[in-house]
Formats: sequence, structure tokens, C-alpha cells
Amino acid sequence: MTRTDLVAALDIGGTKIAGALVDAQGRIRVRTQRPTPARENAEAVHKTVEEVLGELTRSPLWAGARALGIGSAGPVDAAAGTVSPVNVPGWRDFPLVERVQAVSGGLPVTLIGDGPAIAAAEHWQGAAQGYDHALCMVVSTGVGGGLVLGGSLYPGPTGNAGHIGHISVDLDGAPCPCGARGCVEGIASGPSIARRALDDGWRPAPDGDTSAVAVAAAARDGDPVARAAFARAARALAAGIAATATLVEIEIAVVGGGVAKSGEVLFAPLRRALRDYATLSFVRDLTVVPARMGTDAGLVGAAAAALNAPCGVLPPV
Amino acid sequence: MTRTDLVAALDIGGTKIAGALVDAQGRIRVRTQRPTPARENAEAVHKTVEEVLGELTRSPLWAGARALGIGSAGPVDAAAGTVSPVNVPGWRDFPLVERVQAVSGGLPVTLIGDGPAIAAAEHWQGAAQGYDHALCMVVSTGVGGGLVLGGSLYPGPTGNAGHIGHISVDLDGAPCPCGARGCVEGIASGPSIARRALDDGWRPAPDGDTSAVAVAAAARDGDPVARAAFARAARALAAGIAATATLVEIEIAVVGGGVAKSGEVLFAPLRRALRDYATLSFVRDLTVVPARMGTDAGLVGAAAAALNAPCGVLPPV
Repeated sequence: MTRTDLVAALDIGGTKIAGALVDAQGRIRVRTQRPTPARENAEAVHKTVEEVLGELTRSPLWAGARALGIGSAGPVDAAAGTVSPVNVPGWRDFPLVERVQAVSGGLPVTLIGDGPAIAAAEHWQGAAQGYDHALCMVVSTGVGGGLVLGGSLYPGPTGNAGHIGHISVDLDGAPCPCGARGCVEGIASGPSIARRALDDGWRPAPDGDTSAVAVAAAARDGDPVARAAFARAARALAAGIAATATLVEIEIAVVGGGVAKSGEVLFAPLRRALRDYATLSFVRDLTVVPARMGTDAGLVGAAAAALNAPCGVLPPV
Repeated sequence: MTRTDLVAALDIGGTKIAGALVDAQGRIRVRTQRPTPARENAEAVHKTVEEVLGELTRSPLWAGARALGIGSAGPVDAAAGTVSPVNVPGWRDFPLVERVQAVSGGLPVTLIGDGPAIAAAEHWQGAAQGYDHALCMVVSTGVGGGLVLGGSLYPGPTGNAGHIGHISVDLDGAPCPCGARGCVEGIASGPSIARRALDDGWRPAPDGDTSAVAVAAAARDGDPVARAAFARAARALAAGIAATATLVEIEIAVVGGGVAKSGEVLFAPLRRALRDYATLSFVRDLTVVPARMGTDAGLVGAAAAALNAPCGVLPPV
């Protein structure tokens, strides 16, 4: 890849569809986005993708694009080139790779889940830089993640690996919409933290804000119920992170997303709980740190995945 | 590797130390073993290793040995070449690779944990043959495992990956000797199944056998308490297997060891429980099958690991 070569990237979520042209240093050179018409039919959603892509292809920089990476809300099926995002019901087994390829001048297209995309971004430019074995997570409305193993992104055969939000850490726990019980997401997501605090008697400030951000503020002020809700989330995250480390030997867990923005209200009990659950010699030194990539992580990660696509479409940088 | 080339293998456990010369087809050509002097000091344990190795080196076939693989009870540290098996207290950070190399004519030595060794054996010769993404487990006095990812054994940087017995599936559960709570091993091992059956009122036959084998026999005869103990173990195994699949996208879980020999008493509730916990689209088709390798799996797997060592010591078969 030469200095002027670029990678096109799409970040497809239930709220927004973003597109970018990213350079070999990971800098976003062109950026655009639209709201996702998440309740509309398959073609309406795809029309928005085409509008975003259209803005990229009309850029004078488009001529430098050598590949296109897509990070999409999951589940995705990278082998089939299709996506079925939970929050976009109109898209079920939607042939996104084929449809995007058709309107992007035949560029090689790489598809991964949004969790692996975040992991690719943190590994390339963020807090996982220099680590060969890492778990990168987003703790927000949902809980997702992606893995770096042996120095490379490990998206798995269908592009969904690292889906830590839906592993059970409480096999008799509350039913999860996914069908299982006691999933990490059902305990540690923002809405789960807020629900637990309210159930246990926490009352919001006069502004009526009952979000996890408000619970975090109360916890910071010493409210014991709010602190307990965060401690509970921290234990679920710690059990999930320790399980991941025990299964695939990660050295670092990077945690981002809205709930992670609470800072030490989450990270202090998380580090304590990790000492309880990550006990074996080969996982004991595991560190957990906040994410460094901002809201563009999905785009940067999609670009990284396209750059490092196993078929080696691009010459080395 | 030519037809006459062999690989030497050591399988080191808390009960026995076994050695073998294995051919390129995975057949054991020479085999020897001694009881592990597990309560003695480091040098006494190592003397037994040297005796086993001595029998191999005195074999007329030894001249064909091109590499040596060690599968050892864990934790191991493949990067440092040391082992610290829980059941052999005299060995803590014992420099096994260096010591073995010194008495085996300088053959290249590969070290992995016993769980990864089992996985390597099932992938090479057993139930995981032909699968690129697999979890292979032993459910016995303890619970261990190993992973095959992308068509190759994934031992992890220290050789311990796949240690599924010590992931927590019940974050508020009973304390585990490892320091965590609610580990798979604490619910699904043979002794755990027997303890639960006894605690819940199961009474052994007049022979007084209170092992998991006796609980399995009672379950087969319809004893509801015995069946419930196996169902509980099956749920813990299912939660652990589903977590592994959700994190790294395995297609098959192979389950061996003494408890797996109970057959359908374990596998029927295990398949049912997997439907409850493996719910996402990319893990739903996961199958679970009994192991096919016998008691020599550790030796065959150690040989496989040496054959496929990343440094590529041997020419291709």
C-alpha cells in the first residue's frame, strides 16, 4: 500500500450507518453517516447504505480506495457474506457483501461483526496496540467483543468470535432474550445496571434520569445501592473476561462503551473481581484497561480488517 | 517425515508417567510407563521421567526419533519450558524441557498441557478429525480441555488454552480450590457429581460404591436423584461449551474421560442443555460427541504437537 492508497469502511449499526475513507496510518480522511431506518424493509435499509457509499464514491479521494471493510451489528455470516442484525429486523440473511460489491466498483469486500471491528481498531491504533492476545469489549446498551489471537484479529469462520455478551456466567440466572440464562449482557449492560439499581431501591435525582450514567453518578457520590449495581456488573464482566483468558490466554482486556465511560466506578470493582475469578497461573497477570478509540472505532476497525484480509488483496504497507 | 521416522512422546500426569515412540500414522510402536512418585521431591519425579525416557532410548527404534513431544498435567509454561502440575507439588516451575532435552540426544522438544494434548490426538486420529474448529474435553476426576482453531491445535502462548474446567458458569457458586467460584469442574467432575447425588439423598448399592460410575448406574436404572446429579453436570458442561463456541466459534465438542463413559446418561441431558445455552445463529449447529481416543490419547497428542510444532522442525510427512 502506498502513501496515497486508502481503504473504504462501513460501520453498520441499529442507530446509524457510517462510512469513511481511511488511510494506511488509520486516519479518517472522509467521513459520512445517516440514521439507520431500522424499522423499514430490507431495501430501504440498503438504500441508506448506498447513499453513504455514494458520498464516498463521489469524493475525489475515492480513486485511491483499494479495498472495502464492513463492520456490522450481528449476527453476521462472513462465510456467506450475509448479515442479520438483531436491531434491524428487515435484514435477515441479507446479502450485504454482494450488494455492496455491486455498487463499489468491484473492490474486494471484507465483512466482520461489530465486536471484532472494535477489537481490530483497538489493536491497530488503541489500547491493545502491541498485544498479541487481547479481548476488546464494548459495554453499552448491549455487551459485545472481539478477539486478537497470535497477533491478528480472530473473527472466527463466520465473523462473530468474541461475542462475550452472550456467554452465561450464571447458569440459573435470569432468562436472556437470546434464549439462554445469566448472560454477561443481562447483568452488565447499561440498562441491566439501571434496572438492578432501581429494583434494589435506588431513586433518581429530581431530573428523573434513570440511565446507567445517572447510577454511575450516584455511585460516585457514595450511594451504596448504586455502587452495588456496578459491583454486580463488574463481577459478571470479570467472570466473562476470566473465562476468555482461561480458554484462549489473553494478556489484556480492553473495555469501552458508555458504561466504561463511568471510569473507576466500574474499573475499580472490575479489577478487584478479576482477582477473584482469574486465578490460574497463566491468567493471573491479565490487565484490564479502558478503550482508547472513540466513536470511530467501528470504521477504523472495518478498515483494519480489510487491510489484513487473509486473501492478501493489498500489497504490504 | 519418511515412513520410518518416529516421534517420541511423554505423557506426564499425577498418577503415571508414560512414554512412547509414535509413527507418522499415529500408531504407538513402543510404549512404557511408571507410577508418578507424586509426593516426592523434584529430582525423584524427574528420575522417573528419565527411567521412562531410558526405556525409549534403549529401543532399537529410537534411532528413528526426530522430535519429542511432552503433554503434561498443568499448569505448564510452554514459553519458559517449565511445568507446575497441581498434583505433583514437588514440581514448581520445574525446567522440564531443558532437563528432557539433556537426556534425549538434543531432539527438539515441544511442551503442551494435557488438555491441548488430548485435543491434538482427537484432531489427528479421533472424533475431531476433519473439523477445523473444535473443543476437546476430558471429564473425569477433573475437567480439562484443548482447542483446535483454524485447522490447527491452539495451545496458546503458554500451552494451557482450552482450560474449560476452570471457567465460572455460576458466579455466585461454591468456592473452587482454584480460588474462583462456580467453576465447571466443581459441578461436572466425577467427584462433584457423586457429592451432589449423596448430598441430595442418593444411597449407594450394598457394595458401598459412591463413585460417579455408581451414580451413573443408578441413573440408568431411573433413580431420580442420580439423574438430577447428571443433569446438573450436563448444564454446567453445556454452559461452558456454549461459552467456548460463542467466544471462538467451534463446530464440535468432543467429550471424553471417565464421566463421559457413562454414555447417554450424560450425553442425552448434555445435548438438551446445549439447546438451552447455545442459542445464537453461529453456535446453534454445534454438535457434541463422545471422544474416540483411548488411554493413549495423551501420548498420541504429545506426538502430534511435536510433529506440528510451529518451528517446523520436521519436513512434511
